[in-house]
Amino acid sequence: MQNDSGGFEPRVSLITVGVRDLERSTRFYEDVLGWTRSSVGGDAVRFFDLNGVVLGLFSRDDLAEDAGVDSIGGEGFSRVALAHNVRTRDEVDRSLDRVRDGGGNVVKEAEDASWGGRSGYFSDPDDVLWEVAWNPHFPIREDGTIELPE
Amino acid sequence: MQNDSGGFEPRVSLITVGVRDLERSTRFYEDVLGWTRSSVGGDAVRFFDLNGVVLGLFSRDDLAEDAGVDSIGGEGFSRVALAHNVRTRDEVDRSLDRVRDGGGNVVKEAEDASWGGRSGYFSDPDDVLWEVAWNPHFPIREDGTIELPE
Repeated sequence: MQNDSGGFEPRVSLITVGVRDLERSTRFYEDVLGWTRSSVGGDAVRFFDLNGVVLGLFSRDDLAEDAGVDSIGGEGFSRVALAHNVRTRDEVDRSLDRVRDGGGNVVKEAEDASWGGRSGYFSDPDDVLWEVAWNPHFPIREDGTIELPE
Repeated sequence: MQNDSGGFEPRVSLITVGVRDLERSTRFYEDVLGWTRSSVGGDAVRFFDLNGVVLGLFSRDDLAEDAGVDSIGGEGFSRVALAHNVRTRDEVDRSLDRVRDGGGNVVKEAEDASWGGRSGYFSDPDDVLWEVAWNPHFPIREDGTIELPE
């Protein structure tokens, strides 16, 4: 669902840190901050439910591959990527069209994902990556927050 | 308020992008994504309410100064900084103590801020900056989301 102007609903769904060492980063968020990892995810990606916004940990190489970019970090694309999840498959395409029509930078066109949803990426003026995703495994509640399995 | 283990409540309150050009980035989020800027903020910082999580735009130099670090971006600290807002002044200090006691990196000790609250910074293993802030101008609702003035 889009807002009245056809723009994006005001929502950030996931914050993904592209990490150098997945085990070390997982321990930091679990043990130092005391957060509980979701049972969703696995060897390659870790998720934490931050009150309806999801914190994801993903290796930088995997994040770069997912976004279809050469590298993450340094002067390139941001090591912290954001995601705007949408309620329908078609909205992924429409959202990226809006970015392109507005002169924004579509980094990766919408495509069906191996995990069963559809996603694409754009970047903001500081090369901060934003994924636009329809993910049937992460239902969006009426209030816009994500329902992440415990 | 902390969780049962004394850890951080699972919450991200602000996502701040350290930008190179504040006007250009503001136009991107306002015009391309169609989001509405809050009346709070001003010449130096721009805020958008993303459903109880705040997106902030702040120049990289100002963000570096606020965090007490030499520079933002590149191989240094992340250009996207996160914030965990807390409900009381004292909780800022306790939260940073927990990070330090757990072997984490406290980047800036808690101190009273010019804007009337109290804040400090730590970083995660990938040099992603996290601010811990008590901000009386951004009330925290019972459900943990931020009440940003329109």
